[in-house]
Amino acid sequence: MAKIAPSLLSADFANLSEEIKKIEKGGADYLHLDVMDGIFVSNITFGPPVIKSLRKVTDMPFDVHLMIDKPERFIKNFAEAGADILTIHPEATIHLHKTIQEIKSFGIKAGVSLNPSTDLSVLNYIIEDLDLILIMTVNPGFGGQGFIETMMDKIKDLRNLIDQKGLDIILEVDGGVKLSNAKKLTDLGVDLLVAGSEVFGAEDIEQRTREFKLIIDK
Amino acid sequence: MAKIAPSLLSADFANLSEEIKKIEKGGADYLHLDVMDGIFVSNITFGPPVIKSLRKVTDMPFDVHLMIDKPERFIKNFAEAGADILTIHPEATIHLHKTIQEIKSFGIKAGVSLNPSTDLSVLNYIIEDLDLILIMTVNPGFGGQGFIETMMDKIKDLRNLIDQKGLDIILEVDGGVKLSNAKKLTDLGVDLLVAGSEVFGAEDIEQRTREFKLIIDK
Repeated sequence: MAKIAPSLLSADFANLSEEIKKIEKGGADYLHLDVMDGIFVSNITFGPPVIKSLRKVTDMPFDVHLMIDKPERFIKNFAEAGADILTIHPEATIHLHKTIQEIKSFGIKAGVSLNPSTDLSVLNYIIEDLDLILIMTVNPGFGGQGFIETMMDKIKDLRNLIDQKGLDIILEVDGGVKLSNAKKLTDLGVDLLVAGSEVFGAEDIEQRTREFKLIIDK
Repeated sequence: MAKIAPSLLSADFANLSEEIKKIEKGGADYLHLDVMDGIFVSNITFGPPVIKSLRKVTDMPFDVHLMIDKPERFIKNFAEAGADILTIHPEATIHLHKTIQEIKSFGIKAGVSLNPSTDLSVLNYIIEDLDLILIMTVNPGFGGQGFIETMMDKIKDLRNLIDQKGLDIILEVDGGVKLSNAKKLTDLGVDLLVAGSEVFGAEDIEQRTREFKLIIDK
């Protein structure tokens, strides 16, 4: 059964405690946190001090997506701030294997995220170490972008790869996820959908979360 | 008469709207916003999306301190997010004069911030273009640090420099500012005090802001 992780990127940062309560009531499974440093992507969002404050107001698992250069510099900070999953980009680090091991040394899950153009072959010698793989279906940096349709094949290919190897890895998709394409994505074998503006841009955030749950629970 | 700018770095990021209301009621003059990218300093705090959300809940002037590498990349983003003052570091940019002009082109105030070791001579050919100069009295990156006492001479020297030239520049100090040293700093001619943990770490944030105002209004 697929799960939903609303992304805080599109939330009202002046009232995060209330925003989080709404998605919790709606049945969200994870809170997706998009960390950007202005170097790996051309936007700066938030980092450990914000996550630490949020950790105090919810028990939801924190799915933290690091869009930062050389993530190995900050693994400890994000683990201690309260991340349950830390996902990094192979494009951002020379030492992918080492950084994955470091994440796991904190007793949390390790993920790898792939930009739209990044080939699945980067996973060849690392996939058995991973708890999660995130397929970016937009170019990372900003909320509200449209789903890149050519990513459908990449999702299918990754689903096959994981199943062929018999691995227990969460297949996550982030970018342009809407109520209208959620069913199609879970039918392809996506385990975890990230939705930003479609959830936090809704008039009734709690109800919108529930609508996602109804679709993906089918 | 000196003014006070509580720094959001030490606030509860889950409830920023409420935190801001408290300092507003206490009479705070500015909201100080510490932007860090993990490159110029070893912490990542928050960026334009957070500031944009805050702009909707308060009319307080936003005093935005950019501790980011190559700030020229993001001037437009911060101006459009709602900054009233944008302060950059000469240590972070090769093109200080150009970036100052760009800030002012958005109709907002431009400041320069100096790390503890940075000499006042970096101001020689730029000071007449500035609206604000920020003396860092801790090394930037984290809240809760202690005031570096050797900065007292630097503050005096800068006060003299501004007065000798007859310029209308805000002299701001940030780092280790407490109720206990506020009077000493304003007596030296500091115009604007930034206080983080001393305000947001207080049991009664509104009352603590008021205590600062009482001291610096004398």
